[in-house]
Amino acid sequence: MKQDELKRLVGEKSVEWIKDGMTVGLGTGSTVKFMVDALGRRVKTEGLHITGVTTSKATAKQAEELGITLKSVDAVDHIDLTIDGADEISNDFQGIKGGGAALLFEKIVATNSDQIMWIVDESKMVKNLGAFPLPVEVIPYGSQKVFERFDKKGYNPTFRKNNDGNSLLLTDSENYIIDLHLNDILDPEKLADDLIKEVGVVEHGLFLNMVNTVIVGRADGPEVLEAKR
Amino acid sequence: MKQDELKRLVGEKSVEWIKDGMTVGLGTGSTVKFMVDALGRRVKTEGLHITGVTTSKATAKQAEELGITLKSVDAVDHIDLTIDGADEISNDFQGIKGGGAALLFEKIVATNSDQIMWIVDESKMVKNLGAFPLPVEVIPYGSQKVFERFDKKGYNPTFRKNNDGNSLLLTDSENYIIDLHLNDILDPEKLADDLIKEVGVVEHGLFLNMVNTVIVGRADGPEVLEAKR
Repeated sequence: MKQDELKRLVGEKSVEWIKDGMTVGLGTGSTVKFMVDALGRRVKTEGLHITGVTTSKATAKQAEELGITLKSVDAVDHIDLTIDGADEISNDFQGIKGGGAALLFEKIVATNSDQIMWIVDESKMVKNLGAFPLPVEVIPYGSQKVFERFDKKGYNPTFRKNNDGNSLLLTDSENYIIDLHLNDILDPEKLADDLIKEVGVVEHGLFLNMVNTVIVGRADGPEVLEAKR
Repeated sequence: MKQDELKRLVGEKSVEWIKDGMTVGLGTGSTVKFMVDALGRRVKTEGLHITGVTTSKATAKQAEELGITLKSVDAVDHIDLTIDGADEISNDFQGIKGGGAALLFEKIVATNSDQIMWIVDESKMVKNLGAFPLPVEVIPYGSQKVFERFDKKGYNPTFRKNNDGNSLLLTDSENYIIDLHLNDILDPEKLADDLIKEVGVVEHGLFLNMVNTVIVGRADGPEVLEAKR
């Protein structure tokens, strides 16, 4: 089965967890796109009453076009469930997110969610995190200095660029992304602590002790895994 | 002596530390304004070659008008000395900054400085920090939720407003400021650790283990204090 087909199947599977009346955090990325499409169909055919809380301008646009009611995270009491993708998930359910540059709003929405579900194709499941470059969102002013400090620490940093390959990518909050090419993250908690204390860092892509449920797209169908939290 | 006169005298005293050829971080605030004026005079009368690195749009405007050469923190090799104000300095030389809403860029410049000097009138010298509200810069998206979490922790938060008293103040990075009315901060390091790990917090106004020299404006003249670092 192609990767896109695995993503589509987990996206469609995940909306089974959404019940009438729920406030649902809507993540960002190619797998989430299939989930939002499936949710749009349920809203249309079943008349589900759902409030969506989005994590990026891209997802907001898609959800609006599908007729899903949207609210800011600040305008809702609570979020029942957030469904999002992930770039890597370790076998102890720690994650790297931010490949789509939306990690800041994704983490803000996740932090305010009662339950968190990640939906991924099986290529995202790893033993240890780190083969995927770890995104760090940084304030533009002073970002060169943050880069230099990361470089000295051996974090192999690169600035995220736009598709033109030249200009630096700006996040929805108009910050830069520095990707750390670490290969192997042996102590994610220690690294998270180190990164968040770096002056100029807004947020990083380590999502630790957060996810409750993972749906993995496998060739023989979606597999549901429950993280013990 | 009036407070403004104390501020003027320490501002003028502080520029004695600036030598020809230095790269100097220029802080923000009413005391720093006197320092930048005095530096502008030295640049004009003595022909000093100085590169200024500013911490706010306000200081940049003032310095440019005085003919001080400016560069971004990212465009300089290093910063020899940063001179800035402070809202409170404890007797072990820890500080609260951000009353002028420029704490983020102030901390970025301070982090990249070889030496840091704070210039204050004597009213800023306190035993323990906390009578002055502690500013925390937060991402607008989700800021209501951050506010609620601070409130639950007993931090007595208020959103910083513009002078009109209605609209929320936006920082130079287009974030909000939440002021914490703590009265007494007994363990600044623990609080700093707690605040910076809060998702949605960009930076906070605790400047710990940073300052090297403090000049205090007293009725009988400026007093120079050296912090042991």
